[in-house]
Parts: sequence; C-alpha cells; structure tokens
Amino acid sequence: MNEINPWKSTSIDDYQKLFDEFGISPFDDLLANIKHPHRFMRRGIIFGHRSYDSIVDAMNSGKPFGAMSGFMPSGRVHLGHKMVMEEIIWHQQQGGTVFMAVADMEAHSVRGTSWDDCKRIGVEEYILSLIALGFEPEGGRIYSQSTSPEVRDLAFELGVKANFSEMSAIYGFSGETNIAHMVSATVQSADILHPQLQEFGGPRPVVIPVGADQDPHIRLTRGLADKMNLFHVFQKDGLVKIYSKSAPEAAFKTLAKRLAVDFDTDDITMFQGHIDVKGDIGHVRDAVRDVELLVGGYAFMPPASTYHKFMTGLQGGKMSSSIPESIISLTEDPKAAGKKVMRAKTGGRMTLEEQKEHGGLPDECTVYELMLYHLVEDDTEVLEVKQQCLAGELMCGTCKKRAAGLMEEFLIDHQMKREAAKERLPEFGIDYKF
Amino acid sequence: MNEINPWKSTSIDDYQKLFDEFGISPFDDLLANIKHPHRFMRRGIIFGHRSYDSIVDAMNSGKPFGAMSGFMPSGRVHLGHKMVMEEIIWHQQQGGTVFMAVADMEAHSVRGTSWDDCKRIGVEEYILSLIALGFEPEGGRIYSQSTSPEVRDLAFELGVKANFSEMSAIYGFSGETNIAHMVSATVQSADILHPQLQEFGGPRPVVIPVGADQDPHIRLTRGLADKMNLFHVFQKDGLVKIYSKSAPEAAFKTLAKRLAVDFDTDDITMFQGHIDVKGDIGHVRDAVRDVELLVGGYAFMPPASTYHKFMTGLQGGKMSSSIPESIISLTEDPKAAGKKVMRAKTGGRMTLEEQKEHGGLPDECTVYELMLYHLVEDDTEVLEVKQQCLAGELMCGTCKKRAAGLMEEFLIDHQMKREAAKERLPEFGIDYKF
Repeated sequence: MNEINPWKSTSIDDYQKLFDEFGISPFDDLLANIKHPHRFMRRGIIFGHRSYDSIVDAMNSGKPFGAMSGFMPSGRVHLGHKMVMEEIIWHQQQGGTVFMAVADMEAHSVRGTSWDDCKRIGVEEYILSLIALGFEPEGGRIYSQSTSPEVRDLAFELGVKANFSEMSAIYGFSGETNIAHMVSATVQSADILHPQLQEFGGPRPVVIPVGADQDPHIRLTRGLADKMNLFHVFQKDGLVKIYSKSAPEAAFKTLAKRLAVDFDTDDITMFQGHIDVKGDIGHVRDAVRDVELLVGGYAFMPPASTYHKFMTGLQGGKMSSSIPESIISLTEDPKAAGKKVMRAKTGGRMTLEEQKEHGGLPDECTVYELMLYHLVEDDTEVLEVKQQCLAGELMCGTCKKRAAGLMEEFLIDHQMKREAAKERLPEFGIDYKF
Repeated sequence: MNEINPWKSTSIDDYQKLFDEFGISPFDDLLANIKHPHRFMRRGIIFGHRSYDSIVDAMNSGKPFGAMSGFMPSGRVHLGHKMVMEEIIWHQQQGGTVFMAVADMEAHSVRGTSWDDCKRIGVEEYILSLIALGFEPEGGRIYSQSTSPEVRDLAFELGVKANFSEMSAIYGFSGETNIAHMVSATVQSADILHPQLQEFGGPRPVVIPVGADQDPHIRLTRGLADKMNLFHVFQKDGLVKIYSKSAPEAAFKTLAKRLAVDFDTDDITMFQGHIDVKGDIGHVRDAVRDVELLVGGYAFMPPASTYHKFMTGLQGGKMSSSIPESIISLTEDPKAAGKKVMRAKTGGRMTLEEQKEHGGLPDECTVYELMLYHLVEDDTEVLEVKQQCLAGELMCGTCKKRAAGLMEEFLIDHQMKREAAKERLPEFGIDYKF
C-alpha cells in the first residue's frame, strides 16, 4: 500500500464522528491481517467495525465464525442490496457459516405487506439474486422470520430485556406505534443472535455487515446479548472478574470446578456472586462459556459488525427506491440500465478544455463510484481510471460508455444466473412455484 | 323466583356503574332463557355480561358455541380459580367447545417465571384441579401460549392493529415496560379469539367468564376482533349496511353474488366500498361471514363475556394469595382449611343475645359467602341458612362448624380426584413426569 491511501475519499471524513463519538473502530487497522480482503475492504468502502478482530482471529486460526444479514421484502433488489449480499457471500467463502433472513414480520407489521407478497418478493427479488451472486447451501441458511420458531422464541426472550423507552430511542417508536412493529424490532435482534444458539452452531463470532446508519441496532443487540448472559467477565486491577446477578449458587460451584481444571487453585478466589481469577481473560471466557452452556445459559458473544459507505444516487443525490433514475435494480432491463449510466452525474468539468487542463473529480463522480463499488474487480485497473481522470486524460463520455457496457454485461450475466437459481431453491429448503 | 330477589346483596350496587358507564348488561335479563343455570347465575354471583345472549341463543338452538379462559402459572390454585374453572366446565356440559390457556408467556415476561416452573405450576396446580373439577378432553383444549403457534401467529396479527397508547391505557404500560410484556397482552387477546380460527371451529359465539376488573381486556379484544374483519355490518335507516375499507373489489362482487342467493336482487344496492341490503341483519351477517372466510378473512364475532363478583377474603379484607389466612387453596391440607373457616370473619353480632334479637348479617359474612359460592349446591338449603341467620335462629359457631366440615369434605374429595387426574394427562395431550 502507498503511504498516502489511494482509496481515501473526502466523504470518509463524514464518518469520523462515528469513530469518536460512538466507539466504532477504523477498519484500516485490521486490513493487514485479512488474507484475501474483499474489494469493499481494500478500497475503504468498508471503513469501520465493532469487534471484527474476533472474526479476523477466527478466520486466521480456522475457528468457527459466522455472518448474518437480512432484507425486508419490499420493492426491488438493487445495487445497495448487492453490497450486503456480497459481504455475506465473501464470509461464506472464507469458511464462515452464513445466515440470510427475509424480514417478513417487519414488512408485514411496518408496511402492511401481505404474507403472500412477502414470500413472492422475498424469493423473486432477493433470494434469486443472493443465489445468483454465489450464496451456497452448504453452511448457508436462508429463512423467513415468521416461519423460524427458534428466532421467534429468542425474540420473545430478548423482549423481556428490552423496554419501550430504549427501543423507542433507537427505532423512533411513539404512542401510535403498533405492538407488532415493536415485536419486529426484537425479532431483528433475534435474527442477529440466533446463529449463536446451540442448534445453529453455538456461541462464536458472528458479523453483521451494515451501513453506518444501522449502528444503533447493533449497539442495542450487543447490549441485549450481554443482558441475556448469566455470567459477565471483565478485567480490573490485574484480575479477571466473573460476576452474575442471576446465576444460581450451584452454577458458581460448577464454574469454580471448571476453572480449577485450567488455573492454579491459588489463583481462584470465590466470593458471594462473583469469582476473581488471576489469568488470561480469553481462557477464563472459554471456561465461563462452557459452564454457562452447561447450566442452560446462552453465552452469547457480542455480535461483530462492519460499516460500509453508501453509494451516491446516479443523479447525484440520495440513492433511493422512490427515485428510479437514482438507482439500478438487479432485475431491470440491461439496456435501460446502461442508459441510466449514460445519464448519470459525473465529476466532469464544464468544458472539454477545462477537463483536459484541470482533470476530472472522480470522488464526486457516480460513474467512477459504480466502477469502484461494483464494476471493476482489479484494483490497478480502477486506480488507473482514477489517475487518468485526475490527469485530464480520460473524458466522461468514454468513461460512461465503458461503465455502461460493464453494467449491461453484469446484468445480462446476473439475470441468467437468476434464471438458473430458480432450479436451485429446493437445495435451500425453499418450496416455491413460479 | 320471588318478586324481591332473594340473592340480591348490598355489594352488587358497587357494580351498577359498570352497567351505566361501560355498557355491561345485567345478567338477570337472560336468566329465564337459560335451561339449567349454574349456581353462580342463579345466585347473582354472575351479575353482568356482554353479548351473552348470543351464547344463550346458541345453547337453546343447538348451534356451536364456545367458552375460553386461562390462568397465569404462579402461586397456588385457589377458590377464585375454581370459580372460573367451574364456569368453563359448565359451558362444556351445555355442549360448548371449551379452551383453557396456561398463560406462560405472561408469567415469563411479567413475573420472570422460568419455563420449567411455568410448566410445573401449570400442571401441578391448575390443570390437575381443572380435570378434577370435570373438564373433559372431548371438545376441551388445554394449551400453553408458548407452544401454540396458531395463538402466537394470531397475536402478531392483532399486534398490528393495537398501538402502544391504547394498550398502555388498559394495561398501565410505561416506558419501563418490557416489550415481551406488551407481547403477552396481545397473546391474551389471541387466546380469546383463537377458538374462532377455522382450525379450532371457526367463527361462533365464545364466552370469556371474568371478574369485573377484567372488562377493559374484553373491550380491547372486542375492538380488535372488529378491526381484524374485512367486512363491517350494521343497521341504519332501515337498511343493513356492509362496509369495508380493505376488502378487494373482487370480494365485494363475490359477496353480492352470495347475497343474491338469499335476498331479492331489488333489495341489494352496490356502491363503491359498500353494499346496502333490505333484509334481516342476522341473515346478512351469515352471508357476509361465509364470503369473508372464503376470501381469507377472519369473520370474528365479538367475544362474549360474563362478569362475576369476587369473594371476600376470609379475614374480611381482600382475598389475596399474599395473605394465606384470606384464602383457601385447593391443594392445602383439608384440616388446616377447616381451621381457617373456623377463624373466618362472620356477620355475627357482638353477643349471642344481640344475635338472637336482631339476627346476623349474612351479606357481610365470609362463611355464608363460602356456602353461597362453593359449598352448598341446593338453593333452598342455602336460602334456609340465610333466613335462619337473619331470624336469629342460627348462631355463628354452628354455621362455621358446618361450613368447615363441608370444606374439608370438598377438599378431601377434590384432592383424591386430583390424584386420579395425574393418570389422565395424556388424554389432554399433556406430556408430564411427576
């Protein structure tokens, strides 16, 4: 890597306060330890994380890990969804078990979408594209919230620990909010945590790739994960401290016995409701997890997260499903999509002369963004585009034609793969008639 | 019946405002049409109702009807629970299908009762007594909320129609209320309405016997039943009007066709979003129900309710599980229960002389209440007790001894039947190891 990050764009500064105020960590610090980073990672599109080091450690040591995401079955599947799908699929390819939820309880309670429409949109828009992009059944679970009793049971348990005030602070609930809407928020937390249930692989690092605006949901769920656990482990004054308000005395005794296997008994001190250990916190956590599972607890690890930047709308404003010109859906006519690219806002100068003299502004160009995010996999190639643009050697017309061509190619290929995916639904346990 | 109601007690006046302010109807008006009224009905203990005429009509015409109740698995089963159980069992004996819920989701979310304790308390306290009192498997369903997917699915749908403000007005929710607690309130409404799901017998009159304090829940659920329905039928200006905001145009056309079978086409007028019919509202309702079910709606009838008075605590105050002396549990030692009766507050005078001169005050006597509510089935017999007491012929000591004896007898018999009920659990689909 160059000393000056070639991927750094001005817009990343907008996210600085997420680091400062909310304790999201910069993703850069982890990059060197990731063996085959995804282009979103290499290019600074994924810019922040929480606890993603736990995922990197697991990937590098061959330990189990997972990734989870979901989508609300409403509207059409588009490039924004593709970003999350690719991140999930990449983690599957790195050896993780991966989960994709159809958030039908959310769509039904918040948007009033009928269950039939939830199913149809879920399959015909999202699931087909997910499979077409490379999601595999081995170690991959696609499910609907409404038909997953484990998720719904967990949501109810999480709901015991979440009160109206904290939920409304995050989700903007008011007196008019319907109760099912509140339920669907707890179901979202259950989606995130259910991969750590015993029947889905047990406690392990699980990452949720999200946009920066989704961090409040991640923080809520990390808090709930902690509240669900019997034991709480932290370091203080050179000691590892294990506390529990709710664990029965018998559980503490079992824990003490288990600790005595790994640690010198002189290093273990039992108190009423807590145990102090002199030793490595990782080892203590492992022992505590074993015992918590043994006595029927959850032993959830806090879910990890990555944060990605959002693409700009093709017209320059926000990318939004309600502005068709701003967005390209994965199911739209490839020719029409190519035309949208030709009409997109670039970082070009007013005149050809100015462009040649001063160069273009790729960081303000939605066409460059399309190449950066989606259309050009080779880093050298996309950097060449940037440099030629900055040098005034590449004109917008040429660049747009190339991007439009790549977009058409991608959509033709993707839509062929979507057709093939229709045959593969039974491999994912999905029963659907087209 | 005498012109002056021999069962009328002073305390009924406390309930007058329920009639005036909330539109609960007096039960007296229906009594003459009920073939074998329960002693709670005969004696004015059940004093009010909503829509119970629909149940009476069904009973008298041999049409399907149902009754439903539930209990939270917490604490011990006592005489208060016995009242509701008897009311349910009576409706089963009159030919109704009856439902009894173990409100484990409520106990878990509101009281923090573990699922294991919910199961244990549900079976060992409540269900054994319910069976011992005569609940039969034929046309009788005992279930737990948490393991009934139909009830939970319905609760979620009801939750779409119920917002935080209206729920908090009824259940006293605040910002600190956990979401699972709110869910359990919607589950309670689903408990009440689920007997009308197609898989449990379809739309029909279903009565919920409750104490007067439970009316807000009944009103909420009656409102939700209405909100869930596609079509709304009412009478205005000599016409039966069928309205729907949500029914698709096709459903209206199906409805018009169906109405044309029963009514003269000249008497049917179709408008945008509503139909007017000249005819009997009962017949129109039947047709509308058929069509609503055909197009996938619920066609719920508003649940009926009966309201019973509460027994006084044996010490004169409130009957409460937290004051053991105030209450007799169905599982307590019969001798100990007899002693509680001997210590109970009576309506006796200060001295034997006064009692002989002025008579006792049976309406203020918890021992008379025990006989009236539970211990003496024969009306003549219990009225004799009252008259003898009023006439100063019956002294408290004699009366208490008799009641204590009857209580011991009842508990010995009931507890024997509870033992026998243990063998019968599989008949109710209940898998439990003692």
